[in-house]
Amino acid sequence: MSTPSSIIQKKRDGKELKKDELREFIQGISSGEVADYQATAFLMAIYFQGMSLEETVALTEAMLESGERYDLSEIQGPKIDKHSTGGVGDKVSLILAPLAASCGLKVPMMSGRGLGHSGGTLDKLESIPGFNVHLTRNEFTQVLNRVGCAMTGQTEKIAPIDKKLYALRDVTGTVECVPLITASILSKKLAEGTEGLVLDVKVGSGAFMKTHQQARKLAQSLIQVAKKMKLPCRAILTSMNQPLGYAVGNAVEVRESIEILKNEKTSEFCSADLKELTIHLCAQMLCLGKVVRNLTEGRKLAHSHLADGSAWKVFQKLVDAQGGNLSKVHPTHSLPLAPQQVTWKAKKRGYIGRMNTEELGKILIDLGGGRKKVSDTIDAAVGMVFYKKLGNKVQIGEPLITLYAQEKTDLSSLEPRFQQAIAISGTRKSVPKLIFEQI
Amino acid sequence: MSTPSSIIQKKRDGKELKKDELREFIQGISSGEVADYQATAFLMAIYFQGMSLEETVALTEAMLESGERYDLSEIQGPKIDKHSTGGVGDKVSLILAPLAASCGLKVPMMSGRGLGHSGGTLDKLESIPGFNVHLTRNEFTQVLNRVGCAMTGQTEKIAPIDKKLYALRDVTGTVECVPLITASILSKKLAEGTEGLVLDVKVGSGAFMKTHQQARKLAQSLIQVAKKMKLPCRAILTSMNQPLGYAVGNAVEVRESIEILKNEKTSEFCSADLKELTIHLCAQMLCLGKVVRNLTEGRKLAHSHLADGSAWKVFQKLVDAQGGNLSKVHPTHSLPLAPQQVTWKAKKRGYIGRMNTEELGKILIDLGGGRKKVSDTIDAAVGMVFYKKLGNKVQIGEPLITLYAQEKTDLSSLEPRFQQAIAISGTRKSVPKLIFEQI
Repeated sequence: MSTPSSIIQKKRDGKELKKDELREFIQGISSGEVADYQATAFLMAIYFQGMSLEETVALTEAMLESGERYDLSEIQGPKIDKHSTGGVGDKVSLILAPLAASCGLKVPMMSGRGLGHSGGTLDKLESIPGFNVHLTRNEFTQVLNRVGCAMTGQTEKIAPIDKKLYALRDVTGTVECVPLITASILSKKLAEGTEGLVLDVKVGSGAFMKTHQQARKLAQSLIQVAKKMKLPCRAILTSMNQPLGYAVGNAVEVRESIEILKNEKTSEFCSADLKELTIHLCAQMLCLGKVVRNLTEGRKLAHSHLADGSAWKVFQKLVDAQGGNLSKVHPTHSLPLAPQQVTWKAKKRGYIGRMNTEELGKILIDLGGGRKKVSDTIDAAVGMVFYKKLGNKVQIGEPLITLYAQEKTDLSSLEPRFQQAIAISGTRKSVPKLIFEQI
Repeated sequence: MSTPSSIIQKKRDGKELKKDELREFIQGISSGEVADYQATAFLMAIYFQGMSLEETVALTEAMLESGERYDLSEIQGPKIDKHSTGGVGDKVSLILAPLAASCGLKVPMMSGRGLGHSGGTLDKLESIPGFNVHLTRNEFTQVLNRVGCAMTGQTEKIAPIDKKLYALRDVTGTVECVPLITASILSKKLAEGTEGLVLDVKVGSGAFMKTHQQARKLAQSLIQVAKKMKLPCRAILTSMNQPLGYAVGNAVEVRESIEILKNEKTSEFCSADLKELTIHLCAQMLCLGKVVRNLTEGRKLAHSHLADGSAWKVFQKLVDAQGGNLSKVHPTHSLPLAPQQVTWKAKKRGYIGRMNTEELGKILIDLGGGRKKVSDTIDAAVGMVFYKKLGNKVQIGEPLITLYAQEKTDLSSLEPRFQQAIAISGTRKSVPKLIFEQI
């Protein structure tokens, strides 16, 4: 019999743990035999020593087995989901789920809350009055069957150990760790019952993975473990060196998503990257679900279903099926936005050369649009709207951003942080590609 | 304001923590602002990233400040203590404290319990009926003043954070870490009020530090931090490649100590290393306390006070002052020893080539003479007596060891472990020196 302490020491010393040792440890966390303070020492040892493919598979399995697993086999059609590793302004899921459903897929989407500086799909959806992100297993499968997509949060019964470990990692500096991220993502996705998964692995100043190397390592780990767990999977590395689209904040991101779904303001170039990425991810999902033969066909199908309003129809059905009241947010000018609106302007001329996107995400948190502690509530009405993208030319006095803040918020300390986060350079620098590579 | 999580991350990333950050974190552990599961992640990060000298000093200070600090300035004479990093059969303190006191020092000795495979002075003392190792601050200074030495445990008020962190380290694989060991030892020694400290840093198969390099690193860390904390300090590296002396177990170790103090069985060569080390450590303490000018003088003084019964007189006074009943253990044949006595013999001829001393310590634990969990009680009556030292010649059938076990103990599984732990080789191998070097 291994003691928790001896398993921690084995990992600390860089030795490979056996499947049974890992399972015993993980089950011990559930049963209380392994104390939280032992779990966190173990997580930190993993942070430093990493995990082999076999260990990561065993961890994923143990986390999956800690809860229930949905069986969607009675639902017609290919069940394909997408997961993003998180960024700033990433509202892709809100457009993609109905779009992919309109193209013939079933999208069983179990999403998360905002995390650190990154936003969360559940928080965004909740800015639609009445929208219920706490579906039971039955409700989830019913909505999925009827609408073609369903969007919900992880219930208490889905990978409960992941939920517990996640909360511990968040406060012990063990978030940025490839095997732990891999097991966390895949245990949930396997539990929701999807038959295929497209991964959007973000890279850059607003992502958790700041370098290509880190992101590629995560993508490869996800792909390899998914393969061992018999989950068809594709991963693409995409840029998070600037906010995706023009809106950052919960209600404003819903507004931007609806505009794209409705083909409003499609000439608005600030949303072009968001639309392009959504179509690309949809095409990947369609390939994985064998609805199309290749990416070109997939992109074409996605394009047409966005353009002809099919996706928008599914979105309306989805909101209705999950209890949301779309009349409150549509027309979008009726969306509740915070009353103090301030526009900050460029202080020098040149080109947008670099954005500290993580810092922009943190400014949103300081406005009240994200959480510092798990128990914080989110103010959906605060946010930011950007007028410039990387590489754009700016003149002195041209607006860079409009902020939506509550009356009580003192914005004076935020403006210098914002001006610092947006570098304007004399010459135009090359802009990172939106989609780097497919793993 | 740094959050606990950001301090953990900073250490994790190998950055140096500021004094205030460390203090804040340590105070947070006391106040509950830092959770135990954050403390252990921090400890594991320190295990991997180490600590600078300044950080170790700040940690030691913060731990010292978490409790009270004794002021012994009203007690006449140089106050000098000794600390051993722990081993198997290491009963030096029992002889050394009264010996050094008989030579003119005051020895304020705050000791510990057995830890892992190593024995503890407090446990040994408690095999003397009535001996009280829970002295109050007043009792401690009174005994010290009257007898010349006092031997007690860490009270709840002495470095309480050390006590808490120690318990956490013990179950999270973070014991073997130089800066943590350094801060733990020195915070207690500074709190007990000693004016000088001699460190016996053990190296070898029965020590926590298995290699010279590790032991030297620990000794240097202790010396450097002690210097910054204005505590005069010397360290010697000594061999723990075999049990010290002939006895391992609580009552049998008291018996061996009394025999040396009384000059009984002095011809018994198995105790020669114990006696030699005790005299050497005493000489170091006498140098540090400026009672003598050099080691040669110190050794001479120590020798004579051991030979003329002065040390034995102090020991008797000490036991009496701390409530112990020496008549129960003296003459030593009246010591309570466990009833099942078995002698294991050599199965081949040759020379004692290597001892797995840690394993010997673990066999004692399995007999009931040590703890597996903090809450275990110790059976003082069990133990082992060795008849051979490293390098000794043995014939087939010659006794190697006598075990004292309780009737219920099944010894059949222990003998193979014991025979494995003592390697008999065909040729005589060189024996490691008892005292390697002075740092």
